[in-house]
Amino acid sequence: MRARLERLRPLIAEAALDVLLVAGADNRRYLSGFTGSAGALLVSPDGAWLVADFRYWQQAAAQVADFAIVRMPPMTRLETTLPSLVAEHGWRRIGVEADHLTLEAFDLLTQALAERSATLVKTTGLVDRLRQAKDAEELRRIQAAVDLTDAAMEHAAGILRPGISEADVAWAVEAFMRTHGGQELAFPAIVAFGANSALPHHHPGAYQLRAADPVVIDMGARVDGYCADLTRSFCLAPADSHYADVYAIVLEALRAAERQMHAGLTGQQADAIARSVITEHGYGEFFGHGLGHSLGLAIHEAPALSRLNDLPMPVGAVETVEPGIYLPDWGGIRIEDVVVLEDEGARVLTGSPK
Amino acid sequence: MRARLERLRPLIAEAALDVLLVAGADNRRYLSGFTGSAGALLVSPDGAWLVADFRYWQQAAAQVADFAIVRMPPMTRLETTLPSLVAEHGWRRIGVEADHLTLEAFDLLTQALAERSATLVKTTGLVDRLRQAKDAEELRRIQAAVDLTDAAMEHAAGILRPGISEADVAWAVEAFMRTHGGQELAFPAIVAFGANSALPHHHPGAYQLRAADPVVIDMGARVDGYCADLTRSFCLAPADSHYADVYAIVLEALRAAERQMHAGLTGQQADAIARSVITEHGYGEFFGHGLGHSLGLAIHEAPALSRLNDLPMPVGAVETVEPGIYLPDWGGIRIEDVVVLEDEGARVLTGSPK
Repeated sequence: MRARLERLRPLIAEAALDVLLVAGADNRRYLSGFTGSAGALLVSPDGAWLVADFRYWQQAAAQVADFAIVRMPPMTRLETTLPSLVAEHGWRRIGVEADHLTLEAFDLLTQALAERSATLVKTTGLVDRLRQAKDAEELRRIQAAVDLTDAAMEHAAGILRPGISEADVAWAVEAFMRTHGGQELAFPAIVAFGANSALPHHHPGAYQLRAADPVVIDMGARVDGYCADLTRSFCLAPADSHYADVYAIVLEALRAAERQMHAGLTGQQADAIARSVITEHGYGEFFGHGLGHSLGLAIHEAPALSRLNDLPMPVGAVETVEPGIYLPDWGGIRIEDVVVLEDEGARVLTGSPK
Repeated sequence: MRARLERLRPLIAEAALDVLLVAGADNRRYLSGFTGSAGALLVSPDGAWLVADFRYWQQAAAQVADFAIVRMPPMTRLETTLPSLVAEHGWRRIGVEADHLTLEAFDLLTQALAERSATLVKTTGLVDRLRQAKDAEELRRIQAAVDLTDAAMEHAAGILRPGISEADVAWAVEAFMRTHGGQELAFPAIVAFGANSALPHHHPGAYQLRAADPVVIDMGARVDGYCADLTRSFCLAPADSHYADVYAIVLEALRAAERQMHAGLTGQQADAIARSVITEHGYGEFFGHGLGHSLGLAIHEAPALSRLNDLPMPVGAVETVEPGIYLPDWGGIRIEDVVVLEDEGARVLTGSPK
């Protein structure tokens, strides 16, 4: 934790801030270890504070080592506590996280500071950018979440049979992960049979599996705060040639990306590797989402493997690689691994067979 | 759904808006029925649009009746689609939800519209205020979630025995709710034994129950999108007189509030009813949170039973009533019901014995 604070401080100095107010819940946990649902961090070049409300006074003290705990008076808001801290420390330029603070929260804080000679300065991505390169402890937790999800996928493959419902499979994999070390799911499991599998984010329902249905299962455990994400596509009956053809294209796109990706590529470049394979086979318009996203404390974080991301990705970025082809009224095929970017390539963390 | 849109339109006109951009996920679902994780609504005096990304094109068309579906081009952001809609419809004053939009999203939209003669106008609570008064269908779903949570509490009471861990009980109640009609939990269940019960938001762990421990269980199912919230406090061994005294005070505070609450009271007034009981018994400083919050599509929504809320509450507001006393190193007692406010009083929806 302390190393993370020390990596943040030069960025705070560079932005000429006296202090940074950290409002994003995952950023709060990343820097401090505090897991409460509310609270704010303040990080200055030589100090660090966690402002906690009554519900979390004890928990904050137990979880947090490198931050002084500021106990917010019961039933007050941050607007009450911040001005006195600002006065006490003489802060003038207070950075706020524009990508995590609502417009309204910003306005309330601005009003609260109106009589102080202090200004709120919008920043974006200071902590989020640090989080892009995972450290060893984070990689260990992600691998644990991935391993558990691999085991749950094996469990799922074992229970698929004609007549089982999407909802039954979704509950079975959730129960498996929860009783084998997962504290919660990283996101609600997607289990989609038949034409439902053409919906990338289908919600599992009562539909019962038929032997020839395309099957998409997309799920992830969360272990010690860190997420996994894994998709496999199946067909119970011997697949017809159309299914086999589409599956082969998606798999080729996945393998091309995994072979060619490395730190230093932009998200755009990574996306293009897989997309060109699918486009060359004539299915480009049926792959309507980006190739992948990063994960960590959040299931979706930066940097994304997307046309919209033209920044180089760092060593230690953990990315999903998840090409898919979705044919309305027929079904979909998506195959998803998780990789970590290294100087020379991409190391695949997921182990489920394809 | 259509009635909800019709209740919103006068508020849009009153704010002199040509259109309102609805960014909050729960507001989106409330108005349209769309359950996707992303998307934006636009509501004008005579039209309604749901802007959906590729992942949700099919789902949006299936779920939504009163909105025209605008298909965002694959791998673009709202900033790409909004300006052309603005031009097409000649919108000039575009309301945004300041309490749901981040500063950064606001800035990106502002930039995107820089060349149009259109202005973003900050609004707060237009849809959220509508959501305060639950309609019959919402009350039906909340009651279903409450009934399931009551059943889960009975299940929990039946499995409490010396040696069982907090985490085991938390998983048992979650599995019960998920296999008896709950699609997910409204929030991670809180199960706290012994001194842990002094932490209002304790995360269930390996601690094993001893007969004389105070026990707090706080949980809620979610059914058809709607939340429940229920807390009961227990003691396995015959309670000592200290436990019995504190329990009686919390229960007296709860009953006073339930007897005296009705629509038209402010959240402040409701909070004061229970707080004065606890304060008169000398425990005021150990009741450091508000008396309750509203629930519906979200587990925490307005209006709150809190010193900070000085607005009268409407008929149909659904509120938790959850006084508590937390004694560090000893434990805590919280008892929580859910009520709906009516003209003449508060009707209790929860049925678990106290």
